[in-house]
Amino acid sequence: MIAIISGTNRTGSLTGHIAQLYRKLLEEKKVNTIVLDLAQLPHDFAFSALYENGGKNPNFVAFYQQAIEAEKLVFIIPEYNGSFPGVLKTFLDGMPYPNPWRNRKAALVGLSSGPQGGAPALSHFTDVLHYLGIHVLAHRVKMPFIEKNLNGNQLQNENYLRQLNNQINSLLAF
Amino acid sequence: MIAIISGTNRTGSLTGHIAQLYRKLLEEKKVNTIVLDLAQLPHDFAFSALYENGGKNPNFVAFYQQAIEAEKLVFIIPEYNGSFPGVLKTFLDGMPYPNPWRNRKAALVGLSSGPQGGAPALSHFTDVLHYLGIHVLAHRVKMPFIEKNLNGNQLQNENYLRQLNNQINSLLAF
Amino acid sequence: MIAIISGTNRTGSLTGHIAQLYRKLLEEKKVNTIVLDLAQLPHDFAFSALYENGGKNPNFVAFYQQAIEAEKLVFIIPEYNGSFPGVLKTFLDGMPYPNPWRNRKAALVGLSSGPQGGAPALSHFTDVLHYLGIHVLAHRVKMPFIEKNLNGNQLQNENYLRQLNNQINSLLAF
Amino acid sequence: MIAIISGTNRTGSLTGHIAQLYRKLLEEKKVNTIVLDLAQLPHDFAFSALYENGGKNPNFVAFYQQAIEAEKLVFIIPEYNGSFPGVLKTFLDGMPYPNPWRNRKAALVGLSSGPQGGAPALSHFTDVLHYLGIHVLAHRVKMPFIEKNLNGNQLQNENYLRQLNNQINSLLAF
Repeated sequence: MIAIISGTNRTGSLTGHIAQLYRKLLEEKKVNTIVLDLAQLPHDFAFSALYENGGKNPNFVAFYQQAIEAEKLVFIIPEYNGSFPGVLKTFLDGMPYPNPWRNRKAALVGLSSGPQGGAPALSHFTDVLHYLGIHVLAHRVKMPFIEKNLNGNQLQNENYLRQLNNQINSLLAF
Repeated sequence: MIAIISGTNRTGSLTGHIAQLYRKLLEEKKVNTIVLDLAQLPHDFAFSALYENGGKNPNFVAFYQQAIEAEKLVFIIPEYNGSFPGVLKTFLDGMPYPNPWRNRKAALVGLSSGPQGGAPALSHFTDVLHYLGIHVLAHRVKMPFIEKNLNGNQLQNENYLRQLNNQINSLLAF
Repeated sequence: MIAIISGTNRTGSLTGHIAQLYRKLLEEKKVNTIVLDLAQLPHDFAFSALYENGGKNPNFVAFYQQAIEAEKLVFIIPEYNGSFPGVLKTFLDGMPYPNPWRNRKAALVGLSSGPQGGAPALSHFTDVLHYLGIHVLAHRVKMPFIEKNLNGNQLQNENYLRQLNNQINSLLAF
Repeated sequence: MIAIISGTNRTGSLTGHIAQLYRKLLEEKKVNTIVLDLAQLPHDFAFSALYENGGKNPNFVAFYQQAIEAEKLVFIIPEYNGSFPGVLKTFLDGMPYPNPWRNRKAALVGLSSGPQGGAPALSHFTDVLHYLGIHVLAHRVKMPFIEKNLNGNQLQNENYLRQLNNQINSLLAF
């Protein structure tokens, strides 16, 4: 099973659309998937599921437990303020230590309204995953100007689609 | 006025102790200060104060408004999972765009239980502040093994204390 | 005086053209400038001017001495292999410690053939400058797809030109 | 075969001693190795082996050709000025594009005189390797205060030695 983490809690985000597209591309290759959408996190999880409350919020625990058996991970990461969304990092900050995904392998996809395609976000996030003991596929997909290239669930940029498929092939072989 | 942001929402954190120490050092130099302690944020702010709810959570708005006139900023940043705390970034993600601190100047202090003193956290956070248009003082203070060097509010490491005082002098001249 | 460092030793580079354009823009504002073009470095400087040979290569010493009185610095940095050129870093590795530019202020310009405009290079380079005690202007200019936007010495992208002028105004006030 | 790249051209460096130690640890596990010591590069390679001279310096080509069949890579990286040595990056800048090590797997070891153990260098270098399509093992070994922990070729820090052995086991399974 591959877990796809939709890396923002914004309702109806483009990130969520890309997560669903990624799922569809994986399922075309007969891979079992689960999507973790951070919009489903308990609204107060930054307080009720971290530090002395680690492990004590059953909804937070149930959220990540769905994907705890995933063999590989895909993080879809929108660029917010020059890095990854704070909520994505807070989600990881609330998981147990050592992280249950230790030694798993992950692929990163960045997206942005502007020209960078989340490049700095992916760079910072790689440091976080390495700290947690999660290996990162070298091939990062960056999708700048995402609003102009996505129409609902339809990715209208052939180059982006080709990169996603290439990344999937690399991830399956990683 | 200088705003000191205590960069975690963990209750009773060492970060908070360092923030109070920094305040005391600044006040010895007759500088007016305010401490923003992220532990005081509304518990659901990641959902109630971001995106379509931007500006709509009066407690969140009141929180940052206290410091909106600050001429300079100090961020006290504990290293969590190889970077800054997610909550600190989420706080910035909830502020208005463009950020009201644009063109202000900031100093960064990192702390960690381990040996790095928050180095990667400060590096990532510099990218975020640059994105927001906030200048960062070159002199970063890093305090590794913080538990062994802090006794309540008392910093028992002369080198750390000297570095904080040097940073303050640089920040006042920046 | 402001020193403009053309951050590659490639002969006839686009980086060098941008450095000359930057000089022209500064001189229009009556600022005295000098361009340090790394293509002028002694060819064996990585061996003859570092470590036990630090300070012993008179041509290397003369090269940076030209700009040692510069009050501010501008680094024009092409993206090579996902970061800054190795030669630019080697140049800094050969300068004396502490760096004579300590406490000076610097602006960064990135350029790339691809879409990132040198973003990761500027991020890494900021860490280097901070280590050396050199302050970095928050406003970084990134110029992706530079080949398509530069015709000889003529920058044909109005947005890039506006960003350079804005950065210059910020640097002069920094 | 595993290639160990000793990441500085400094003669008699501690980096070189660590490279030899790493080789010994690998050979105890019956792994075939080669050490590439950047001190053996042609002294003018930054000019004679890059850009329009790419592929034209036979000594430079012969240097990396020794290791072109390596299945895995280990980079020993000393922290210079808050990042990796410029020479190490220049070496990669001179290799052909696409890099012949594309899709290979690499482990990173950092060392420093100071407390960081090369953490920022390893972070920056990961971005470079990812750009080149080289996968990086999550487990990075950082060895701060290296002068105090190395006596000739003898690593006198049990923790560092254990980390190296753990990394080797992970790399062999990666």
